[in-house]
Amino acid sequence: MGGGGSDGRAEIISNAIRVIPDWPKAGIQFQDVTTIMLDPVAFKHCIDLLVERYREQKVDVIAGFEARGLIFGAPLALALGVAFVPLRKPGKLPGETVHADYITEYSTDRIEMHTNAVQAGQRVVLVDDLIATGGTLRAGMELISKVGGEVVEAACVIELPELKGREKLDGLPLFVLVEKEGI
Amino acid sequence: MGGGGSDGRAEIISNAIRVIPDWPKAGIQFQDVTTIMLDPVAFKHCIDLLVERYREQKVDVIAGFEARGLIFGAPLALALGVAFVPLRKPGKLPGETVHADYITEYSTDRIEMHTNAVQAGQRVVLVDDLIATGGTLRAGMELISKVGGEVVEAACVIELPELKGREKLDGLPLFVLVEKEGI
Repeated sequence: MGGGGSDGRAEIISNAIRVIPDWPKAGIQFQDVTTIMLDPVAFKHCIDLLVERYREQKVDVIAGFEARGLIFGAPLALALGVAFVPLRKPGKLPGETVHADYITEYSTDRIEMHTNAVQAGQRVVLVDDLIATGGTLRAGMELISKVGGEVVEAACVIELPELKGREKLDGLPLFVLVEKEGI
Repeated sequence: MGGGGSDGRAEIISNAIRVIPDWPKAGIQFQDVTTIMLDPVAFKHCIDLLVERYREQKVDVIAGFEARGLIFGAPLALALGVAFVPLRKPGKLPGETVHADYITEYSTDRIEMHTNAVQAGQRVVLVDDLIATGGTLRAGMELISKVGGEVVEAACVIELPELKGREKLDGLPLFVLVEKEGI
């Protein structure tokens, strides 16, 4: 489910991504989205495609994962005029939190969210830069569920289809802007 | 140098900030900006005030500090149509980096930037959520200087004037949206 359509924006985004071989460890071809951010046209295309996807849907909250999901999620929330909720590494949020643990392709980690950041029944879209094995998104689904919110979709700039993360989302719709080969 | 003027936006932003007493340690009144992000009006006022400040200036790059500076800096860069550069915690950036060490009111820390993210002569605005003692912003100035860029101003949502961080910036102009009492 690529979101770029045939108007060339997905290709511009894809071309703006730098691949760093063997980072953070051997065998990983790291998809570096900081080179999207350096290109105002490519970065704007990302946000525009996300806004076009969600502006006609009833979305109450955009939740973005630390750190790169914050960079794509915050502008989306602003453009939609809805709340933005950061999903953060442990110990970073000052208020009462809920947490979820997850395993990525690199490590085991935990994310936290302010307990009162999402209200019961609110419709939430999760945003991250990349879906690999899907562990981070699953943890986000768990967080939102813990406070009674409804995750209606997940959105990522990049999908690595070979890692089959999409299949780990229990049927949650996943919207991606570009697909990349590799792991 | 408050940026809110007399039109009430700074007051709306100020009122949207939650204060968490004694976090992350006793005696600190933590200014929690996640409650700005939950309020689409207050969050938009922040970005609008920043855009109004910089849109007539010749700015090439917005550099935002992990993590909260990313949330305010990325939308600003998008609105201005300029590059966005994340200044990150150690070990997070996949490419070649430069680093700078700094002391905050809480800890000693390091930030890193991709070496090729800012070109010599580019005009850079540093963005963070809050200026306390000024250590983080000073480290950002050092990073940009290392690669030959010119920091033309720093912008923060909140200033804690009692901590006199402004005086640590070697005369760099500092633009803030609201001032708060306390440390």
